[in-house]
Amino acid sequence: MKRTPFKAFLFGGDWNPEQWSKEIWLNDMQILSNAGINEATINVFSWAQLQPSENEYDFSTLDDIIQLLMRYHFNIVLATSTAAVPAWMAKRYPDVERTDFEGRQHRFGERHNACPNSPIFRKYSARLAGKLAERYGHLEQVVCWHISNEYGGSCYCDHCAKAFRTWLKHKYQSLEVLNEAWSTYFWGHTFYEWDEIFPPNILGDGIDENHTTLSGMSVDYRRFISDSMLRNFVDEKEAIRQFDLTTPITTNLMGTYKNLDYFKWAKEMDLVSWDNYPSCNTPPSFTAMSHDLMRGLKRGQPFMLMEQAPSQQNWQPYNSVKLPGQMRELSYQAIAHGADTIQYFQLRQSRGGTEKFHSAIISHADTDQTRILKETKRLGEELAACGTQLMNGRTEAKVGIIFDWDNYWAFEYLSGPNVRLKYVDQIHRYYAAFYRRNVAMDLIPADLSAEEMAQYDIVIAPVLMMIKSGVADHLKQFVNNGGTFVTTFLSGISDEHDNVIIGGYPGPFRQLCGIWAEEVDAFPPEKTIKVQFGNRSAIGSMIASISHLEGAAALATYQDDVFYQGMPAVSVNHFGHGQAYYVGTVLDNDGLDLLADQLIMDHHLTNYSTPENVEISVRSYDDYKLYYILNTGKAVHKLDTSALAGKKNLLSGASVGAETTLQPYDVLIIRA
Amino acid sequence: MKRTPFKAFLFGGDWNPEQWSKEIWLNDMQILSNAGINEATINVFSWAQLQPSENEYDFSTLDDIIQLLMRYHFNIVLATSTAAVPAWMAKRYPDVERTDFEGRQHRFGERHNACPNSPIFRKYSARLAGKLAERYGHLEQVVCWHISNEYGGSCYCDHCAKAFRTWLKHKYQSLEVLNEAWSTYFWGHTFYEWDEIFPPNILGDGIDENHTTLSGMSVDYRRFISDSMLRNFVDEKEAIRQFDLTTPITTNLMGTYKNLDYFKWAKEMDLVSWDNYPSCNTPPSFTAMSHDLMRGLKRGQPFMLMEQAPSQQNWQPYNSVKLPGQMRELSYQAIAHGADTIQYFQLRQSRGGTEKFHSAIISHADTDQTRILKETKRLGEELAACGTQLMNGRTEAKVGIIFDWDNYWAFEYLSGPNVRLKYVDQIHRYYAAFYRRNVAMDLIPADLSAEEMAQYDIVIAPVLMMIKSGVADHLKQFVNNGGTFVTTFLSGISDEHDNVIIGGYPGPFRQLCGIWAEEVDAFPPEKTIKVQFGNRSAIGSMIASISHLEGAAALATYQDDVFYQGMPAVSVNHFGHGQAYYVGTVLDNDGLDLLADQLIMDHHLTNYSTPENVEISVRSYDDYKLYYILNTGKAVHKLDTSALAGKKNLLSGASVGAETTLQPYDVLIIRA
Amino acid sequence: MKRTPFKAFLFGGDWNPEQWSKEIWLNDMQILSNAGINEATINVFSWAQLQPSENEYDFSTLDDIIQLLMRYHFNIVLATSTAAVPAWMAKRYPDVERTDFEGRQHRFGERHNACPNSPIFRKYSARLAGKLAERYGHLEQVVCWHISNEYGGSCYCDHCAKAFRTWLKHKYQSLEVLNEAWSTYFWGHTFYEWDEIFPPNILGDGIDENHTTLSGMSVDYRRFISDSMLRNFVDEKEAIRQFDLTTPITTNLMGTYKNLDYFKWAKEMDLVSWDNYPSCNTPPSFTAMSHDLMRGLKRGQPFMLMEQAPSQQNWQPYNSVKLPGQMRELSYQAIAHGADTIQYFQLRQSRGGTEKFHSAIISHADTDQTRILKETKRLGEELAACGTQLMNGRTEAKVGIIFDWDNYWAFEYLSGPNVRLKYVDQIHRYYAAFYRRNVAMDLIPADLSAEEMAQYDIVIAPVLMMIKSGVADHLKQFVNNGGTFVTTFLSGISDEHDNVIIGGYPGPFRQLCGIWAEEVDAFPPEKTIKVQFGNRSAIGSMIASISHLEGAAALATYQDDVFYQGMPAVSVNHFGHGQAYYVGTVLDNDGLDLLADQLIMDHHLTNYSTPENVEISVRSYDDYKLYYILNTGKAVHKLDTSALAGKKNLLSGASVGAETTLQPYDVLIIRA
Repeated sequence: MKRTPFKAFLFGGDWNPEQWSKEIWLNDMQILSNAGINEATINVFSWAQLQPSENEYDFSTLDDIIQLLMRYHFNIVLATSTAAVPAWMAKRYPDVERTDFEGRQHRFGERHNACPNSPIFRKYSARLAGKLAERYGHLEQVVCWHISNEYGGSCYCDHCAKAFRTWLKHKYQSLEVLNEAWSTYFWGHTFYEWDEIFPPNILGDGIDENHTTLSGMSVDYRRFISDSMLRNFVDEKEAIRQFDLTTPITTNLMGTYKNLDYFKWAKEMDLVSWDNYPSCNTPPSFTAMSHDLMRGLKRGQPFMLMEQAPSQQNWQPYNSVKLPGQMRELSYQAIAHGADTIQYFQLRQSRGGTEKFHSAIISHADTDQTRILKETKRLGEELAACGTQLMNGRTEAKVGIIFDWDNYWAFEYLSGPNVRLKYVDQIHRYYAAFYRRNVAMDLIPADLSAEEMAQYDIVIAPVLMMIKSGVADHLKQFVNNGGTFVTTFLSGISDEHDNVIIGGYPGPFRQLCGIWAEEVDAFPPEKTIKVQFGNRSAIGSMIASISHLEGAAALATYQDDVFYQGMPAVSVNHFGHGQAYYVGTVLDNDGLDLLADQLIMDHHLTNYSTPENVEISVRSYDDYKLYYILNTGKAVHKLDTSALAGKKNLLSGASVGAETTLQPYDVLIIRA
Repeated sequence: MKRTPFKAFLFGGDWNPEQWSKEIWLNDMQILSNAGINEATINVFSWAQLQPSENEYDFSTLDDIIQLLMRYHFNIVLATSTAAVPAWMAKRYPDVERTDFEGRQHRFGERHNACPNSPIFRKYSARLAGKLAERYGHLEQVVCWHISNEYGGSCYCDHCAKAFRTWLKHKYQSLEVLNEAWSTYFWGHTFYEWDEIFPPNILGDGIDENHTTLSGMSVDYRRFISDSMLRNFVDEKEAIRQFDLTTPITTNLMGTYKNLDYFKWAKEMDLVSWDNYPSCNTPPSFTAMSHDLMRGLKRGQPFMLMEQAPSQQNWQPYNSVKLPGQMRELSYQAIAHGADTIQYFQLRQSRGGTEKFHSAIISHADTDQTRILKETKRLGEELAACGTQLMNGRTEAKVGIIFDWDNYWAFEYLSGPNVRLKYVDQIHRYYAAFYRRNVAMDLIPADLSAEEMAQYDIVIAPVLMMIKSGVADHLKQFVNNGGTFVTTFLSGISDEHDNVIIGGYPGPFRQLCGIWAEEVDAFPPEKTIKVQFGNRSAIGSMIASISHLEGAAALATYQDDVFYQGMPAVSVNHFGHGQAYYVGTVLDNDGLDLLADQLIMDHHLTNYSTPENVEISVRSYDDYKLYYILNTGKAVHKLDTSALAGKKNLLSGASVGAETTLQPYDVLIIRA
Repeated sequence: MKRTPFKAFLFGGDWNPEQWSKEIWLNDMQILSNAGINEATINVFSWAQLQPSENEYDFSTLDDIIQLLMRYHFNIVLATSTAAVPAWMAKRYPDVERTDFEGRQHRFGERHNACPNSPIFRKYSARLAGKLAERYGHLEQVVCWHISNEYGGSCYCDHCAKAFRTWLKHKYQSLEVLNEAWSTYFWGHTFYEWDEIFPPNILGDGIDENHTTLSGMSVDYRRFISDSMLRNFVDEKEAIRQFDLTTPITTNLMGTYKNLDYFKWAKEMDLVSWDNYPSCNTPPSFTAMSHDLMRGLKRGQPFMLMEQAPSQQNWQPYNSVKLPGQMRELSYQAIAHGADTIQYFQLRQSRGGTEKFHSAIISHADTDQTRILKETKRLGEELAACGTQLMNGRTEAKVGIIFDWDNYWAFEYLSGPNVRLKYVDQIHRYYAAFYRRNVAMDLIPADLSAEEMAQYDIVIAPVLMMIKSGVADHLKQFVNNGGTFVTTFLSGISDEHDNVIIGGYPGPFRQLCGIWAEEVDAFPPEKTIKVQFGNRSAIGSMIASISHLEGAAALATYQDDVFYQGMPAVSVNHFGHGQAYYVGTVLDNDGLDLLADQLIMDHHLTNYSTPENVEISVRSYDDYKLYYILNTGKAVHKLDTSALAGKKNLLSGASVGAETTLQPYDVLIIRA
């Protein structure tokens, strides 16, 4: 595992002083320094100010900002400012703006507004990044480059159409291969010339953003757009590296965000950073899973928590404040799952623009007497006291859960059998079952080798519909070698082009799982099915695979008046030295807990029983372990901590007793 | 009644071998032959393969497919493949693609993508149909032509605008007449030049697909588009008839599909065929009504069931499988209502494209060991055993229900009084009441002469809002001659241009029904009104006409605290030798049953009392009758069959007892 | 207060005889005259008929209509007919049509279809108004000009873009000032050339019609469009004044319609007129508030009720009829709140077009034997009997509620904290609390001077988020002088450009209200909070401001398990000689009633306790008062009228007893 590049624990966030007068700057520096803030992420949206016209650059304000930060000994994360093109560029080169799914060429507005395949955008974004690196790359306090911001969206313009064709030629070499890959015979779509192919928006084969005629084409288009934006990232990275060979380079990702294949992106990033924005009803397990996914992108390497809201957001339907202690608790949850920085959006709250009601460290009240600032200061003091102890930990997981963007895309393009199936939800259900028992997990890509998988006792692959080349073989080998594999309905359905693998579901897993899923029934929301596990029962919904055992044993069966009464709902198959589980329905939490408990018991997985909303995560450091015990809710809990009695609580300095009371949003970090 | 053109009962469906390698072809032939399949519908989406470029045709694959089918003695329904234009055509002639309601010119994608008024499309679709007829029309095994596929959608491009103006000139001769017909004085829309008229999409007078400024114009545009696509059908039909004078020609319709006036289409079709896709919550009465509508298009002539799903579909929100026996039961229900073929979409399940999760006879498992194949085989054996006994039946209905596309369109464009009113739902409510008593019904067009109507005891016309020329007179004459007419609120409102007929609702039916509907009150969803029929009561909703008796007698009155307490909700008027009923509200099933029971009793209509979800339909053949007794649900029922005791059950060969147990989805066909 | 310009009480409505044959005209005149109708609003949608081509005008039909109306001694409100451009103009000058929020240039259709900045539209609309004034302005029976009709909508075309830039240059003088005003540094939007600015539709900074990137720009665009249409109004007004110096000029407004700043419009209008269309579930308090807003536009001057539906409408989802007496009751409610005319849309019901199911005085039945006509006739007789007694009243209100379109716009663009917050709803909640106690209120603009405000005891400003220049000072002065000010959460947030005022909410009201609202928590719909007023409690929802008293006293506190238990929910502060209330949450009716009761008691405001759905309004005339006692519902009420005993009921002529029974929708007008 690669270690974090930072010498100190960064505690800071986005700061946009160019939007304010210089008196404010000094005021901010004092308030922030007093609160223990030691980092500022700057220059995120300043392109129009840095380059007022095509051949003119003006770094004077940025010079002043950096001077000031250096004076106050802030670490600087320097953004390249390319997430929104200047208005003059949109006016002069209208095709720099995106064309949307509806086929509308935009004129100028919002952000993320540049076509990723615009030659003008590519030229000027890289040029700006280079100029910034040339000017500031040598500064010691510039500890990280932050390229663009929250890459995302899509474009369907003629530049993209042309680049897509080039991408396709490179991938398929010939139209014959492409026609076969995309099943273009369907509805008579055979292509005879490359330029007959258009991006699949509403004017083409897109039905809406989630439905398409040819999923092969639409999945490829998503791959292409992800690659195009990644190319934008690399453009800037290469420009920076012309002048700065060492400062780490990142961009802020967005957890389970759909449009970009972050596993592919992570390969080009020196370190991962991401923005964590739970809403008022996001379950703590979902936040934990998102952290684990971000940590998984670079196989365990610590990540930056580049943004979180100090309190409420503005863009949710209902923007509740974070309750007292909740921001701190969420910060430590991030650290418990792999963050080695805690950063906020933003340090000073906006005066104008659509985000002006998003909370900030310094609010519109412009004082340090706010609850937010007091809580920030407390956290800053704690982090300073902990020093580097919290950094460079490892999560030692024996359970890996596959998360795969190709599957995310293909699964959600699937027309049928049930519109309520969502990829991330299906992954999260399995994650949450183990999370409830505080079992450490890794989120892993689909393309691990059997060797890499060998570190896990269990690999779980919910709805692994699309089986890319090698994936099935690696999983078979993993099980053959003694591993346990868990998969579900709608796994093993299609190849990497989303063409169905003929021969009975779950295709390449049929032998592995010892089961043939003959039919995949779908239920409307009002219908469920009883699933009997020995003398305990659970409920299945949405989907019921109608399966025949081919060597596997039934762990649970359907109990219903329908014709598949008694047929296997959950089964397990011995394969080589291992086992393969197949789950034929969407189990409720009772069912998933039964399954998880059995797997935990069988594999003697480290686990902890805790009340609802109490999380225990363990991180291993060079020569010690830290137990992060978090109350993620507002109830008070008493916890049996006898096993850790006598150990030191890093935050309070006190030693742990046999029983510990957890106040709302309380956090214990116990060193052992 | 014209007889079916087929010598044997066709049992088959869509087959797309050009999407597969030739090894698969042979495999399919063997599986399908073994299952009793004797028909294949081919060449449905092959245009791009048949015509790879503008001046190049290649029939070699199709030759091979037809050779193989002939070898296996399959009947062939030969499609013309024109439901999706090739990509090269869209690229070369961009205006061959449609412009949608939002005004967007599409580029290439999906299907039904050709502008019906594109000269290029018209030229090449007809040319292809001609070439196919020239090459294959003489083959005895080609038993039917299937032009295009599921015609539908609309277009609003400049070709259509121009053609619309020509269509209007032909219809109205002068702009003065058109201005009057469309009430263009409203909101100052007077036209002085023909080319001031644009198609009523969002850029014109369309508000959304269901709302418009000038319903006269929008109804005309629907007529025009229906005519344009019918002209496409006729283009190809005429091209075929250049080379093949005898093989019957059809296209597959879609039941109550809104966009095309199927009564007008049926006149150009040699026989009707249609695609039956009930969802998991479609009531059996709705499916029965759809069959009766399709049978009614050619006044009782048997139709082809061109497509049904062997099990689940893919494009519903929740695609449940068909339960054991359900596919068979639905097949016999089709036959009981007039089908003389049973065909599926499709014989082999797709590997790619948006329909890949739509069930097929040969599933992705690629084996004959599936439930679907076993059920198919059983049905095939039964159909083979029955032979032609099931063909050329007649439904002897004494009840006719008017279904009229002009009304469908105009009714759903009506702005006010209640947005929840839907045309087909209002028709189905009346159909279902008689269906619950197993009374035979015909769905009939609005333009029958009194002579043609004379075959019915009762003619029902729910919400017959638009009264086209002659319709009111024919109905009056029908009643005068002794017929019974039933109509409802919002009948008799407007003329064929959807201009209101001045003089008090229900306009031309005011004298006939002996009632004046002064006001048409509308209720929000939470409000209903009690309707008292003697000492029994029912509930009205959505609409309450406030009417004054002008000779009619009240059958039921409103009971409410509103001012129309005691006013007539349902009334009957003696007119000549007949009677006319007027129903002023949307009756619930209790109310409709009371009304239907009285009509059944008064007219001594043949009817059968059965439990819910048991249907009895009777078909008359040359010298025998068949009683189709269907369990359309999954409950078991015991049925008193003493009246048919001793008769033969065609499917089991057994003779009928005094009591019969109906298993889930059970079917009895009793010959008497 | 300016008096009504009419000598008699106008009782009439829209009449469109040009849509009918001349026989109908005479028929209408007779029916309407018999019903007491004395006014017709004509020529509303006749542009295409008056100007059949660019250089041709034809007034012959209008001449005939006016001749006829003069013969029957009708007062004429003469519309200019410019609310829909002729088809020939759209064909000849396509850019006269609007471009919508989606960026689509329309072709021809609907109404309100002209771009307000189209030079062609401006030229020809003014020319037509001038020609009408030249021809008919001198006629005594033309008592009012009615320009266009229900101005509204928006446009985003290139004409508008260009005009917007001009408007901006005039307002801001330099781009530096504009960039600062719009906070364009946000997301790097800095503008360096004027023509980099585009209208904020979907192709620009508009996210959807209610969301935007830069609220400063979008609020300015709304101001600009309101001004543009007002300029259209003035174009025509000036053209009329070339030929007619005296006849009053109006256009019909639409109550709380969002898009136009009616306070600004009213300054250009000789008198206000408006269209009142409550739906079947509009509370009577909302209708009352709308009247008070319309009366407030010209500070109490009587207004015209230009349109109301005689019974049902057609464009609501559920168009219920008005119950017997309801139309009369609604008419008197209008008069009780300031109407000096009662007019309907429309006198004869349309035969075609989207409004054909909108009720009219003469319905499709074309007879005077309808309920509508009988009720109209009764009302006509009453109005004739009352004569001018009902005219030129004053509402003597001691409570003013601020309604401000800039706030309406800015508040609904606010991203966060709670999507369910709607401006008009928040105003209405306060209005309704006082309405329940029959307290007279004025709706007032935000820019009254302290002097003008001095006529009120209480000024209420719910969610006065945007504080334009001078507003805070005037309010402070008002309170300092002894006035009582009531405001709420999310008041005092931003300046006139919607940039946040730094320094702690409620910004300029912080000192006035003696409170600092540190945080603004938002609740999802399922969450509420208990608010304790002494020993009585109420419920808060949607928002809970977390505030600190800075001199104010808490009137009510939060009771909840959250951390702000016991913090002030409602507070009052003494400031100078007055008091300022701050309400931190969305109070339910119980809470608002507690607050209103206290304010009523403290200020000895005239009020009446009545059952639900009984309204008492008082109007003062030159030397008498009229008490309008309205039963706005269908229950029967007994009312203690001893205080008015012996006074005359103007409508029945009877004298009032100690107790009065109010029948459903009953109306008493008591002269005192």
